[in-house]
Amino acid sequence: MKTSLYIFKIGGKVLSEPELYQAALTTFTQLEGWKILVHGGGKKATEISKKLDIIPKMVNGLRITDAATLEVATMVYGGLMNKQLVADLQMMGSNALGMSGADGNSILAHKRKAGEIDFGFAGDIDKVNTIGISKLLEAGFQPVFCALTHNGKGQLLNTNADRIAAYLAMAFADQYQVKLWFCFEKNGVLANSEEDHSVIPSICFEDYLQYKENGTISEGMLPKMEYAFTALQEKVSRVAIGSPNSLAGNSATVISL
Amino acid sequence: MKTSLYIFKIGGKVLSEPELYQAALTTFTQLEGWKILVHGGGKKATEISKKLDIIPKMVNGLRITDAATLEVATMVYGGLMNKQLVADLQMMGSNALGMSGADGNSILAHKRKAGEIDFGFAGDIDKVNTIGISKLLEAGFQPVFCALTHNGKGQLLNTNADRIAAYLAMAFADQYQVKLWFCFEKNGVLANSEEDHSVIPSICFEDYLQYKENGTISEGMLPKMEYAFTALQEKVSRVAIGSPNSLAGNSATVISL
Repeated sequence: MKTSLYIFKIGGKVLSEPELYQAALTTFTQLEGWKILVHGGGKKATEISKKLDIIPKMVNGLRITDAATLEVATMVYGGLMNKQLVADLQMMGSNALGMSGADGNSILAHKRKAGEIDFGFAGDIDKVNTIGISKLLEAGFQPVFCALTHNGKGQLLNTNADRIAAYLAMAFADQYQVKLWFCFEKNGVLANSEEDHSVIPSICFEDYLQYKENGTISEGMLPKMEYAFTALQEKVSRVAIGSPNSLAGNSATVISL
Repeated sequence: MKTSLYIFKIGGKVLSEPELYQAALTTFTQLEGWKILVHGGGKKATEISKKLDIIPKMVNGLRITDAATLEVATMVYGGLMNKQLVADLQMMGSNALGMSGADGNSILAHKRKAGEIDFGFAGDIDKVNTIGISKLLEAGFQPVFCALTHNGKGQLLNTNADRIAAYLAMAFADQYQVKLWFCFEKNGVLANSEEDHSVIPSICFEDYLQYKENGTISEGMLPKMEYAFTALQEKVSRVAIGSPNSLAGNSATVISL
């Protein structure tokens, strides 16, 4: 049997609400076997940007990573969030090691080509260095990835944390039995967004298309779902979406093909 | 014969002047054998602090690390400087891996006890986790340490980069043949601070006491010299102080007991 590897992505309010944050780290530290944490930036990046008078640049509702925004991302994701997460995980007994995609050349990306929209320093992933990351896992470390990659030519790039989690999961799917968990503030994908206990226990691709059409699944959940199905097609063994507690208690939403 | 290990500390203007920065990274990547880079924060921390309206707190000329200052240090040292250094080193062929003392629980410290002065979140080093760091070296990584440690209880701490370099060197002195290089903007310790070519080739402890008394060595150089002698007493095999090029060309100042 293959060694199991958890890819545990935390984002949204989990990073900014102390109770959720604590619960997420507890769930992560209690996972058995090899594991990797992936995190976004939460509200802190917006807060620091405001203080530095950097106005988020939006085109057609999409955020553009200009040089100043990349600098804030590097400071907040790579510094503030990543180092505090590592310090907290170490306190809880996890041998956490904070990383960006540049560290150990672990995630190579290229600057997204400018089409109608120039996204600036946004990185699309080319390659996950599974050999390098495996060495860290084998040596007993638990990598903690922030939402930064690099192009191998000295340029850091901003890459969505959900995407990083999905690419890590897919890259390791041949080698390990990979479980990809998206951890956020809700108990799972909800049938009724107003009702915390309306978790849909499992969603297959056909269900998804229906939920998408009738609006049950919308906005920020859509890319997560797309990543989930792509990951499953690429042999990731299990994908679940839920809160720290629902994921730990196996009551989160499970995605299947 | 023991494996050799370089501890290469860069600071001062090296981080903020492009030509010196490039030269320092070139010197580092060309060092043969195992190596660790240690860096301070340069002028960037002051610049970001100013933008965030954080006024550096000084008591008797000493900088106090209050919570806001620690946040900036974590962002700038751990994020901005560390990740860019790693991305640049990777481009130059070094398998750099950025770290704080929290990552891999590599440097444990305690908050400096408040005496007449409360230094705030300043960390005095208790223990270097040589086993964990050795695993990274053995796996082919080149750790890049920023000036942050942790107390193992979730608290990050600000620790002087010269001090981190010296403690790393001393911790590994039994195991490896350690060379500790302090890399800064000058060619070495100068007999005449106005004259770049007045490098003192070697300084022993007796010389040092004299240079200190007659003012040849003063201010920022004093703690470096103290670390150098302590390191040599603790079996570090060689300590040198100089510029990227003088260190590479063996024309920097060599410290001896």
